[in-house]
Amino acid sequence: MKIALDAMGGDTGPDVAILGALAAVRARSDLEVVLIGPEELLKGRMQDLARDDAGAQSRVSVHPASEVITMEDVPVDAVRKKKDATVVVGFDLVKHGQADAMVSAGNSGATMAAAVKKLGRLPGIARPGIASFFPTAKNRPVMIMDIGANVDCRSQHLYQFAVMASCYVRLVLNTDRPRVGLLSIGAETGKGNALVKECYPLLQSSPLNFIGNVEGRDVYRGNVDVVVCDGFIGNILLKTSEGLAEAAQQVIRGEILKSWRARLGYVLMRGALAGFKKQVDYAEYGGAPLLGVNGTGIICHGASSAAALRKACLVAADMAQHDINAAIVRLLGEYQVEQDSVAS
Amino acid sequence: MKIALDAMGGDTGPDVAILGALAAVRARSDLEVVLIGPEELLKGRMQDLARDDAGAQSRVSVHPASEVITMEDVPVDAVRKKKDATVVVGFDLVKHGQADAMVSAGNSGATMAAAVKKLGRLPGIARPGIASFFPTAKNRPVMIMDIGANVDCRSQHLYQFAVMASCYVRLVLNTDRPRVGLLSIGAETGKGNALVKECYPLLQSSPLNFIGNVEGRDVYRGNVDVVVCDGFIGNILLKTSEGLAEAAQQVIRGEILKSWRARLGYVLMRGALAGFKKQVDYAEYGGAPLLGVNGTGIICHGASSAAALRKACLVAADMAQHDINAAIVRLLGEYQVEQDSVAS
Repeated sequence: MKIALDAMGGDTGPDVAILGALAAVRARSDLEVVLIGPEELLKGRMQDLARDDAGAQSRVSVHPASEVITMEDVPVDAVRKKKDATVVVGFDLVKHGQADAMVSAGNSGATMAAAVKKLGRLPGIARPGIASFFPTAKNRPVMIMDIGANVDCRSQHLYQFAVMASCYVRLVLNTDRPRVGLLSIGAETGKGNALVKECYPLLQSSPLNFIGNVEGRDVYRGNVDVVVCDGFIGNILLKTSEGLAEAAQQVIRGEILKSWRARLGYVLMRGALAGFKKQVDYAEYGGAPLLGVNGTGIICHGASSAAALRKACLVAADMAQHDINAAIVRLLGEYQVEQDSVAS
Repeated sequence: MKIALDAMGGDTGPDVAILGALAAVRARSDLEVVLIGPEELLKGRMQDLARDDAGAQSRVSVHPASEVITMEDVPVDAVRKKKDATVVVGFDLVKHGQADAMVSAGNSGATMAAAVKKLGRLPGIARPGIASFFPTAKNRPVMIMDIGANVDCRSQHLYQFAVMASCYVRLVLNTDRPRVGLLSIGAETGKGNALVKECYPLLQSSPLNFIGNVEGRDVYRGNVDVVVCDGFIGNILLKTSEGLAEAAQQVIRGEILKSWRARLGYVLMRGALAGFKKQVDYAEYGGAPLLGVNGTGIICHGASSAAALRKACLVAADMAQHDINAAIVRLLGEYQVEQDSVAS
């Protein structure tokens, strides 16, 4: 099992990627990681960072790529112009069977564009998308799809997101019949915008375990395994949640700093807060899988730590091993929704 | 200044409404509140709850209404059928000049429907909407519009939301030139879904202080005063935020209960947490104004406390006094956007 890891994608520099790769191969003995990036630089840093661990070092190699797509680049243009960009080279390795999956913490639009360009779409899938796990109150995550790849969707696209995310949750999380919810503004049938009203019957008559509309407040409750929405809303949901968590921390920190009593209390609560942080930490979930492309890819947060990249490599290996794509194609075949209009 | 208050709307019963009304008239000496609901019941409870305060009692009266629209009722149907419902009777008082504004913690769809039916829309306004304040990291709230009245919008509707919310923030919060942001998935022009791309130029060429697209993470940062979005997204944003806050509390509580050390820490931090809670408490913001109807109305959270209803009555008085509706009509007149298509 060989994972390609974009060594230049994250905001945190190549050392973090190298440390993530080393940690991943230590965690799973049949794993190899290929770091994609400037060969000399990466080999030099590897020497320094893995000096004491020849075993791990022997399973982390470097594949050269001379260009990097930055967060400022326009995804599709950049993928076309920068032919030797890490993310393009990485998916090329996957395409030619030289790697089983690709992991990148870079520009997510470009990662998606490179994946689609190199690997193509799965048969029958109209729109590949990005899924992401969100923590919940119940110690098991919920998968939201799409979180930003497709801003204007039709109902058939949402239906396919539900199929793809269900397969993922079933195979990677071993959830027997994942509960699928359609994100709306009221639980009752008939509540929602035009897209939701059109999608509801598709999901209801499908073989999926559709539990109906779910509201924003259900996302974090842990009563649903998969929530589908268009990528515009999914992205806003993701960013708003991150922003709310940041703002709450900032305000609480300000209040704590006002009194010695509260500061002492904070010190005593640190252990409990660490437990909370671990439960909600995105690093625990291993990034956001690209679903619907004919191959395996994972997009990580730009600020990913080595621990997050390690986890993403392990999840990518899991995804490839469980052959989630075959399961998606099979499930899609069981219940075809206006196939022609979906593919158009 | 006389405010009609729906005594039967909230989940918490008429006592809370009565206590809210009494607190409101105590806070402002020129204020009267008319409680709308079953006359005998309300008068009896008033006797008990305000026994020691004849002054306050003299400025809280009761206007009879025999029916209640529940959260389960279908808004438009219920408003048509239940002609003597509290919320219908309340807006009728406003229509006939017997009250300056109406406040309800009941079914928000029905409150909106009753307001539109009794008061009509402001001249030039295509779609009245519901605006709501959200707390931010900067100790000043941001107003989001629409939060649920209009699920499928056109760009002209979002533009009018921006006009209405700007007037509100300018007059009620005394913010000189409120910064208006368009909720999207990237700050750059040209990012977003079809609706956002269409709305962007309307806002940019308007007299509003438009600062461009804002992302989900900007909502809670306090760098923008008004955020516009369609009601489907606004409602999901609101409910997701509430759900996230609930889930985080639940998980943290679970972690704290695991250790005595953390429990002690929690006790010491209580003051700081109370400060935090006060800053983010919706009760501090006085409910969600209905904007775009030809009169004044405020919708409160179903679980509103007496303090929240008190604040809502005071804000409703402020709204009526500042004549926000006249300001909206004036500002709308300064820059007309395809008036015919908006009104259609």
